[in-house]
Amino acid sequence: MDPKLASLTPAQLRGQMRSGGLTGNTSGLAPGFVQCNLVILPQVLAADFLAFCQANPKPCPLLASSPAPGDPRLPELGDLDLRTDLPAYRVFRNGEMVEERHDIGELWQDDFVAFALGCSFSFEEALLAAGVEVRNVTEGVNVPMYRTSIPCSPRGEFRGNMVVSMRPMVAADAIRAVQVCSRFPAVHGAPVHLGDPALIGIDDLTNPDFGDAVSLRDNELPVFWACGVTPQVALENAAPPLAITHSPGCMLITDKRNAELAML
Amino acid sequence: MDPKLASLTPAQLRGQMRSGGLTGNTSGLAPGFVQCNLVILPQVLAADFLAFCQANPKPCPLLASSPAPGDPRLPELGDLDLRTDLPAYRVFRNGEMVEERHDIGELWQDDFVAFALGCSFSFEEALLAAGVEVRNVTEGVNVPMYRTSIPCSPRGEFRGNMVVSMRPMVAADAIRAVQVCSRFPAVHGAPVHLGDPALIGIDDLTNPDFGDAVSLRDNELPVFWACGVTPQVALENAAPPLAITHSPGCMLITDKRNAELAML
Repeated sequence: MDPKLASLTPAQLRGQMRSGGLTGNTSGLAPGFVQCNLVILPQVLAADFLAFCQANPKPCPLLASSPAPGDPRLPELGDLDLRTDLPAYRVFRNGEMVEERHDIGELWQDDFVAFALGCSFSFEEALLAAGVEVRNVTEGVNVPMYRTSIPCSPRGEFRGNMVVSMRPMVAADAIRAVQVCSRFPAVHGAPVHLGDPALIGIDDLTNPDFGDAVSLRDNELPVFWACGVTPQVALENAAPPLAITHSPGCMLITDKRNAELAML
Repeated sequence: MDPKLASLTPAQLRGQMRSGGLTGNTSGLAPGFVQCNLVILPQVLAADFLAFCQANPKPCPLLASSPAPGDPRLPELGDLDLRTDLPAYRVFRNGEMVEERHDIGELWQDDFVAFALGCSFSFEEALLAAGVEVRNVTEGVNVPMYRTSIPCSPRGEFRGNMVVSMRPMVAADAIRAVQVCSRFPAVHGAPVHLGDPALIGIDDLTNPDFGDAVSLRDNELPVFWACGVTPQVALENAAPPLAITHSPGCMLITDKRNAELAML
């Protein structure tokens, strides 16, 4: 990462994204501040998607939604414009990803409703602060993510199995990770599984469905967290005419501090 | 268990033990109340044993100690007499268990100091209340306990490896168990290990060093907690001329409530 970027505030970083000067992965940017998954849908689907998030809070922890249809701001999370302030977006038509863009001003509709969901970057920071190694950070890659056999509770047309992220840990660190992450239900909370991946429908850890593989040592367990890519799978299944999300790893950087999300 | 016993208060149960009418396992008695491991030593060793407990709080969570040498009471834990109020005791001479007794009045010395340590019965109750199955309770046997390769921090002559208890669980229950037990550091707290037993020096789960084997299913992980039998191993190594403990499973029943031990 450009060392100059590391010292920028969330507002300064969003400014760079707005001007097109910053278009990549946001991992490690604005340490201490919450980054979010983003889902944008036409209003007609908003109630169902909200219900889906409420019914599946571990993969879809809702942090903020549009103050009104068509309003591109999320005032609780900072002075931001959702049309320009992410480094990269994915455009879905009829459930299929058709395009990746750095700006969605041309696509914006008066009936759009946006949902900002918690992201694992927040709990990774808490794990690192607790002295727990996070393998994807160590290896400088995107976290490996897998489709599972764990069904989400369906709402309306939104349905599908949970996507999980995986971090290998020795057992003592896995136990500490449960403690640390339990304080952060707004960013996926405690792991949903650990140990045998086959028990949740994952055949091959070396071949993730999203992100990059990481090394797993003999004395380690794979530890699995509910993942914010889950709503993208639900979007594929709901197949709305148009939907927009962030591009994986290219998150919405907010003014909210991770510490504000901590329970207890 | 005699259904009449289940309704007795801790004081009534101690009265039955004092009169010799109750000499067996205390599992399931006085639900809601704290039961304790007991270690009694000559005063000359008390400072070292206290230091050992402080240095190894997971296996040796100290709840109370004698108000003065020779005093057989523990007023913080109830109106009780340590010479008579446990169902069974073990007598160690030079580190070797030489006798099991139901009363230690004849052995009591003016220089004895007693230590009451938290016991897994308290967190088992919390697990059951959270809907987590506890296999040794389901199968009606004593929990399996194993000597490990995890060293305790030595203090004076007290040294040795940690003893752990094991409860098999599916991963989701293991994660819930970490959350539930983390609230109870005074009764061993969160597990110390889960998954591969060989990593902590256990060769054969079907052959515990103390207690009884329980069934472990293919979809389960063994989950390991620091165990209050650890100080008995430290006693074997320190080999004092005389020491007395409770007999495994035959605990000191106190007037303190498990709920009083909960953090948060």
